[in-house]
Amino acid sequence: MNKGLLFIISGFSGAGKGTIVEAFLERNLDVKLSISATTRECRECEIEGVHYNYISRESFENMIKNGDMFEYATYVGNYYGTPKSFVMKELEKGNDVILEIEMQGALQVKEMYDDAIMIFVVPPHAKDLKDRLLNRGTEGIDIINNRLKRSYEETELMLNYDYLLVNDQLDDAIKSLEGIRCAEKIKYKRFLYLKDKFKEELKEIID
Amino acid sequence: MNKGLLFIISGFSGAGKGTIVEAFLERNLDVKLSISATTRECRECEIEGVHYNYISRESFENMIKNGDMFEYATYVGNYYGTPKSFVMKELEKGNDVILEIEMQGALQVKEMYDDAIMIFVVPPHAKDLKDRLLNRGTEGIDIINNRLKRSYEETELMLNYDYLLVNDQLDDAIKSLEGIRCAEKIKYKRFLYLKDKFKEELKEIID
Repeated sequence: MNKGLLFIISGFSGAGKGTIVEAFLERNLDVKLSISATTRECRECEIEGVHYNYISRESFENMIKNGDMFEYATYVGNYYGTPKSFVMKELEKGNDVILEIEMQGALQVKEMYDDAIMIFVVPPHAKDLKDRLLNRGTEGIDIINNRLKRSYEETELMLNYDYLLVNDQLDDAIKSLEGIRCAEKIKYKRFLYLKDKFKEELKEIID
Repeated sequence: MNKGLLFIISGFSGAGKGTIVEAFLERNLDVKLSISATTRECRECEIEGVHYNYISRESFENMIKNGDMFEYATYVGNYYGTPKSFVMKELEKGNDVILEIEMQGALQVKEMYDDAIMIFVVPPHAKDLKDRLLNRGTEGIDIINNRLKRSYEETELMLNYDYLLVNDQLDDAIKSLEGIRCAEKIKYKRFLYLKDKFKEELKEIID
């Protein structure tokens, strides 16, 4: 059996990658979503194991020490990271896994797992980012500007991605993601062993 | 506008690539099929412009001389080849083009047009090739054995292909081909110019 595929989905803040991933998972129930771990407290609106796995600082630091984190970062004094064990276990079982993760972390994972398929989500126009962030209404203009500045600084990192998913119509974006999955599954590099199998089989049936 | 994509479809004799291509084209009317040119005579069951473009030896040799053939070969004293002009014109118009072509020719095209997407069709098992060739009932066992021997010799060339399409269920094979098309359309390498466009746009909207 072939291993599962690891899809890394990144995108500028406000590009709508969360919405795409959620809708994709609803239609592709056999795909697993990797949940990040964090040391920050669970907010009232959040659910353990859905938004994050909330773990102690000690556990997190132990996982770092043991190489059990694919990537991690600190933000406002808390750790955020991607535990390796869940991802690797599912891939070994033949299940495809999605990582929704920012660019710096994505590149760290790619470095450790070169087979990862890198997908970058963009809106049709950059101004859509600002509109969406403003419409969310959860952040002030200063934070929004910081997010946009970070996007600006990170554009060069787009070069590390395999696919560009333009989030114009949600349904089209999901179909594109399904197309990527379908195509990646039949990449010849995943079936190199079939060449020799066919050669053997052909040899046997030639009279 | 982006250029169209060139799909090269090859496969062992009897793998069913003709059936897949035909069914794919019926469902994807905007994709163009490249028709080979030949100097052999049109058979009664064949239609000019559907099975081949039948042209004179003089025309064919002129096209070779002028570099108007993507690839060509001779077989039983006749020329067979892929005229370049149709393919290039459609790609420039933004249309996707399919070339259904044997492996040697496929590699010649790939050498001249590196963006070509190489798809190799195989049956689930090599013995299916023999069964299908026998069931066609159009060729004697000697010719069938020659075809199988040729397939055997050409297995190493599979390494030049990007995708492996297992022709088990026709409908699945078509969906896979559609998935490849969908994924290849959003390969980031085709949108490198968008990086700078986004950078420019982001710069403008940051307060």
